[in-house]
Order: sequence, then C-alpha cells, then structure tokens
Amino acid sequence: MTLDYSERMGSIKASEIRELLKLTQKPEIISFAGGLPAPELFPVEIVKEMSAEVLDEMGTQALQYGPTEGFDPLREKIAKRMKKFGVDTEAKNILITSGSQQGLDFTGKIFLDKDDVVLCESPSYLGALNAFKAYQPKFIEVPTDNDGMNMDELEKILESTDNIKVIYVIPDFQNPSGRTWSVERRKRIIELANKHNLPIVEDNPYGELRFEGEMPPSIKSFDTEGRVIFLGTFSKTFCPGFRLGWTCAEYEVLNKYILIKQGADLQASTLSQMILDRFLTKYDLDEHIEKIKAVYVKRRDLMLKTMEEEFPKEVSFTRPEGGLFTWVTLPEHINARDLATKAIEKKVAFVPGGSFFPNGGNENTFRLNYSNMDEERIVIGVTRLAESIKEMI
Amino acid sequence: MTLDYSERMGSIKASEIRELLKLTQKPEIISFAGGLPAPELFPVEIVKEMSAEVLDEMGTQALQYGPTEGFDPLREKIAKRMKKFGVDTEAKNILITSGSQQGLDFTGKIFLDKDDVVLCESPSYLGALNAFKAYQPKFIEVPTDNDGMNMDELEKILESTDNIKVIYVIPDFQNPSGRTWSVERRKRIIELANKHNLPIVEDNPYGELRFEGEMPPSIKSFDTEGRVIFLGTFSKTFCPGFRLGWTCAEYEVLNKYILIKQGADLQASTLSQMILDRFLTKYDLDEHIEKIKAVYVKRRDLMLKTMEEEFPKEVSFTRPEGGLFTWVTLPEHINARDLATKAIEKKVAFVPGGSFFPNGGNENTFRLNYSNMDEERIVIGVTRLAESIKEMI
Repeated sequence: MTLDYSERMGSIKASEIRELLKLTQKPEIISFAGGLPAPELFPVEIVKEMSAEVLDEMGTQALQYGPTEGFDPLREKIAKRMKKFGVDTEAKNILITSGSQQGLDFTGKIFLDKDDVVLCESPSYLGALNAFKAYQPKFIEVPTDNDGMNMDELEKILESTDNIKVIYVIPDFQNPSGRTWSVERRKRIIELANKHNLPIVEDNPYGELRFEGEMPPSIKSFDTEGRVIFLGTFSKTFCPGFRLGWTCAEYEVLNKYILIKQGADLQASTLSQMILDRFLTKYDLDEHIEKIKAVYVKRRDLMLKTMEEEFPKEVSFTRPEGGLFTWVTLPEHINARDLATKAIEKKVAFVPGGSFFPNGGNENTFRLNYSNMDEERIVIGVTRLAESIKEMI
Repeated sequence: MTLDYSERMGSIKASEIRELLKLTQKPEIISFAGGLPAPELFPVEIVKEMSAEVLDEMGTQALQYGPTEGFDPLREKIAKRMKKFGVDTEAKNILITSGSQQGLDFTGKIFLDKDDVVLCESPSYLGALNAFKAYQPKFIEVPTDNDGMNMDELEKILESTDNIKVIYVIPDFQNPSGRTWSVERRKRIIELANKHNLPIVEDNPYGELRFEGEMPPSIKSFDTEGRVIFLGTFSKTFCPGFRLGWTCAEYEVLNKYILIKQGADLQASTLSQMILDRFLTKYDLDEHIEKIKAVYVKRRDLMLKTMEEEFPKEVSFTRPEGGLFTWVTLPEHINARDLATKAIEKKVAFVPGGSFFPNGGNENTFRLNYSNMDEERIVIGVTRLAESIKEMI
C-alpha cells in the first residue's frame, strides 16, 4: 500500500543533524555534531524545587489547559528581557512557542505560498531551511562575510527578484558560521526591508552567550515599522528539554502567529511555563548565563587553540565571540562528507557543511560544536579530526 | 505597514472556542463551553512526586534534547496501551506529539495540497477543521446519525468525487455530537478506504472515558493495510497542561509524521515525557481513569436529567455513553449564536454549533460540556439556559 502524500512531502528529508545525533548518542563518540548545551550546567535541583512549588501552590492550574498566547506572567518577564536586545515591548507582543523552532515553522505557514522566495544567509540554519521547505519556497542565498550578510548583494537581489516574502537571518553567533553582524549592517537591512516592505525574521538563540565584547543591539531594535519578527528561546540559556521559546512581534503580526499556534498544538505546556516563570522570579537567569559562559569560553578557546596547532594551514575557521559553533573551510578538493565518514571511524562526529546551503555546493565546509564536550574530549577529538584531514590533503 | 501574508491566512480565523474560553475564565461564569477536564481530579501530588524522582535520578537527561520520535520507554508503554483499542503494535509505530492537536496539523501537512478534499463527519471537531484549513482543502461533510457516519452516503461521495485525500473521523463520543460509531460501520469504512486507497485519520481523545457498555474495537483494529492513522492523547485521561499525545501508524506513514515533527518543533518536552512515563510505571492509569469516569457519569446524568426536565420538548439532544459532550438541536428558527448572547447575560456559556460545520448552516445547534462544572453549577446553568431558550421559542 502506498498512500498519496502532498506535493510538499517530496522535498522534505530527515535533518542530517537529527540523524547524526542518533548515532552520536553512543558514549564512546566524541561529538561536535549537535547544538547541545552542556547538560552538567542544567539547574536540575532548582527545577525540582520550582516544580514542587508550582504544583503545591497552583497545581490544578498548572496541569490544565491555558491560553494559546502563553502564561501571562512569563510573557511579561520575556517582554522585559527583550530590553537586553534593545527592544522596548510588552507582554501582548510575546507568544510562547515550543522552542524557537516552532516560530520558524509558523513563519513559513504565515508568509509562504508555493514558489515564493526566502532570502537567507549563505550558509544558514538547517532546521530553519527544513521548516520552510514544508511551504515549498525557493531559497536565494545572500553572500556573507565576517560582518554578516553582504548588504550590497542583498540590495541587488531585492531589486531584481519577484515574490520575495521573507528575509531570514541569525545575526548573533550565526548557526552554522559563528559570525556576528556589524551594527551598521543591522541598520542597513532595516532600511532595505522598509523600502521593499518585507518582514525580517531575526532568529536569536545564542546572542546572550557572548564571551567578550559588547552585545550589539538586535535588528529589531532599529525597527520603526514593526516588520521584524524576533525569535528567542530558553533552550541555550536554561534548558532545551522544556521546549520553551518565544516570538516577539507587533500585535498585528503576532496575532497571525497566535492563530496558527491554536491550530498547530493549542498552547505550550502550562506546567513548563509556570516552572520557568518561577525560576525567573526567584533566581537570576543572567547569573546562570554567566556560569554557562564561563564553561563555554574555555571550551571555545581550547578548540580554537587545538585547531590552530593541529589543523593543516590550508584549513581555515571562524573565531566566534560567543555561541556554540565554529565553521571550518577545507581546501576545495576535500569533501567534508568523506571526512565525516573517516572521522566517525575514529569515533569523532561533526556536521558536514553542505546541508547548510539550501541550493547545494560548498561541500568543503563543516560545523563544529564546542559546548557539549568536556575539555579533554575537545583536545582528543580535534586532534583525531586533524589526523583525518591530513590523510585527505 | 501591512505585510504580505500567504494565501492560506485568508481562511484562518480565531477558534470560536478558544476565544470563548478567554471570556469564560471569569469565575462567575458557568461554562459548558470548553472541553476542559475537571481539574480537581488531576493527580497533582503524584505529578510532584514523579517530577522529583525523574529530576533526582535522570535530571540532566530530562532537561536535554531528546529524539524527535519521543522517549522510548513512553513509546513502548503507549504501544502496549493500544491493545485497549484492539491494536497490536510496537514502539516504532508511535510518535509523541504536543497533544493530539499536533497530529491533526501534521495530517494536513502530510496529505493536503490546495483544493484537495477532506471528508469529515457532519458536524466535526472545530480544532481539526482549523488545523486542516492551513493547507487550504475543501471539506465535504458526510451525514451522520446515532450510529456514526452514514456509510452509504460516504460510498456515494467516494465514487463521485475527485481529489479526496483524507477521511477524518472521531468514532468514540464524537466531538461535538457525543455519538459513537457502531462496529459494523467501523468495518465498513475500512472496506471503503481500501477500495479507494485513502488514509483514515481516527481521532480518539475520549474513547477511554466510557461510562457504560463495552468499548468497541477501534477502526484501526480492523485495518489490515496500514491506512489508519490513530491519534491519541493524555489530555483527558491524565492532564492537558502536559501537552502530550501520540500518533500511531504503520512505520512508512509514521515516518512522514516524524519528519514533519523535526521541522515543526524538534520534539515534545523531555521532562514531561519522563514524568508521564514514570507515572505509567508506578501508578495504574486505568485506575485513575475509573475515578474520572465516576465523577463525569454523575455530571452527565445530572445534565441530561435537568435538560429533560427544563428544556422545552421541541429541543432534542444526544445521550452520550461517555466522553465530555452532549449536542443539542433547537427548533430551526432559533439561532444558537443569539441564544449564546442571551445566555452569557445570565452568565452561562456554551459553543454554538454552526462552527462545527465547515460549510456552514445548522445554526440551530450547540454543544454542551459536562466535565468541567460541578453538579450544583450544572443544574443552575442548564436551568438558566432553559429559561433563555423558552424566551426565544
């Protein structure tokens, strides 16, 4: 028996990362593949305490249906936290989602008809590309450099292309490249979006994990017309197993996301929202983030140092000021998928870069995560990886 | 500023129920509107205990990302529970979703292109219609009676209609009608679906809440070709705030749901899944369901008795053997939306029936929920409702 599926299913494949993650669950594998936070930093005891308090004090409410928009006290706290990103907003502009991933899926649903165009950075986040693909768009990749998306190239594309519906960007410690946009480009993209009346989806899962320098204002902070949709998450600053993220947008736009959330899954978990809300009331999330950063900065430093020492000099890589990833470029004749096969024999895993380019190519790139492995395993893993690369050069 | 939304957004409106629920959160309102379980029956203390144990014993795992398919021990237990529905299956055929609502959204994504046809019962669950609408199908309503969908009518439609892609049914204590399909029709729909090679989506949120008589085998239990997709949920038997449901299907079909889950929100909450799994290990869910049924049966009896005594004899209603709802039919000249306006003045809320018919009409019907109000409020509310009806007759 073969059923008749929708046309969109022809273009939807398993995420290479999710499939890899299954392989890498074996403890002997040194995995730089996922975007997993360091679990030893999760506030397990505090979550336990908050969970008990919520259930003691408001147990029946915590287990009942709640509003689609989310638990109001949590929405208020998130609205206030948006100040960190330079955004002055209110609870009514916040929708609680099942991770920021859900905000990506909703973005596709809300803006994309078949054959519409999504502009994205080249490379871009694989999970976003997969979410959008369900709505059958075309992707145009805008070239990037160390300061983010190239604005002159963006302008050219905007002026020469019909049916562009969304500009999707990750301006802080981009996934997969680890790069951060300059302030000037953040201002410039707003001007261009205003001129062409386009929404910008600003995905910011990592911005709060800055190890050095000042956090630049978000693109949304320069938005005077309400066209930036900001996606945030607690997956990297609190814990991913809660599946809590948010969408922040002008009410007129956010209301579309709320309507879609109703049909998609009614609401986020009431209990999870209340536990997180209580954590934010009784503890200082920023203090917790400092603890995370203190660990990650050492891991990044050690990974970069080992790469510098061990990788052949034909191999280049980015030097992220925060976040979870560095991005490696091999000599053009080396295919990172072949390298991945070699590396997995040495029990080291990473994600080949090709899948971060929606239109293919760039098979000589790959992404390394440094947040999830301890320092010893980082040194061993990068050294083994260097051996595999040398064998291929 | 007005952004350019996708075509589908033109047909997506706020769910009347969700909007009503916001109004009915005021404690002075006697609400028969939602499909809310009785919160006083939630196992709050046990959830607290299970949460503490999970966090003590496997805290870091509980707060980390997990597989898209769901937590394996929970999938295994659900597979075993499927025996209650007459279905012999395995963990690999179970996907954990964010409520069964998410399974409905995924169904639309997987099977529906624009202008494809969904066959549904007339009336059908509003939340499913809203979920499907995002994929721009046409709905054909199949007439129903006290034994479920009319199979001769279904056969005629199947033979005369192109582009039918999904048959969506709620055979047990249907939402909104409260009716249950006969066994004969369950067998017959499989024959018809086999003949026309169509998937059947069997939505069963209430089947385990049977107050009297034997639970009939599910439609899926008669499925020899793997074309029935069964949607289950813990919202009505455990608690809805956890947002945990499941999709059970042949692996080839389920794999499409898993792919879509990856892009939609990666996975369900790891912690919630582990708490529920531990509850299912240490406690007897069926025993808990008995407690729920003991309360609901009294509420149903009292609601039906009061309706019999107070409603004018021109008004008819269904006599559900379980579940949460009864369905009322007024004389044709009375519009239930007008009645709702009158009733809300008397602080009584319900959902007018019109929105359960995707193609409109039937404005002389409405749905009453009996699970969420205590016995005193049921008598007062139904009596007030009867007064409003009498004023309109």
